[in-house]
Amino acid sequence: MHVTLVHVTVKPDQVADFITASLANHRASIQESGNRRFDILQFPDEPTRFILYEAYASAEDAAAHKATAHYKTWREGVADMMATPREGIQWICHAP
Amino acid sequence: MHVTLVHVTVKPDQVADFITASLANHRASIQESGNRRFDILQFPDEPTRFILYEAYASAEDAAAHKATAHYKTWREGVADMMATPREGIQWICHAP
Repeated sequence: MHVTLVHVTVKPDQVADFITASLANHRASIQESGNRRFDILQFPDEPTRFILYEAYASAEDAAAHKATAHYKTWREGVADMMATPREGIQWICHAP
Repeated sequence: MHVTLVHVTVKPDQVADFITASLANHRASIQESGNRRFDILQFPDEPTRFILYEAYASAEDAAAHKATAHYKTWREGVADMMATPREGIQWICHAP
């Protein structure tokens, strides 16, 4: 799998709206044929911190995600919610 | 889902053995009825760093994993490979 952990820290008053926007992205993203995971995680000790755990069958599938309308809607919708720039880190996936 | 990110840093000469041991744990763990993810990730910039991304349907399923023979075999097998103590961090999972 092609795995990216997207680390996000949102402004404190934007937590609920970020979750709502990301749930919409989740629902559409898991319909993509190459999608394998789109998990929305929140850090209990610091509720403004999130990880979007995104996995695709291939790098091409991951790139195709960024061309979708739902990704662009999410990206534009959450831009002003960020407390710091978000960071996507790609990891080597040994399994599955 | 009940999601735990297990952060591991192994000794440089133990990277290959850690991957082998974790692949065995992966193969057995994904057979557990409550398992949803058991992804083995390696950080490209620091190949001694790993995340085991483990998700179970419930906290009870996650606890049951720690009672399995394959978990105990992994835990004992990798103990001396660690460069620093491993850290499991549970995150709130909003989706799926």
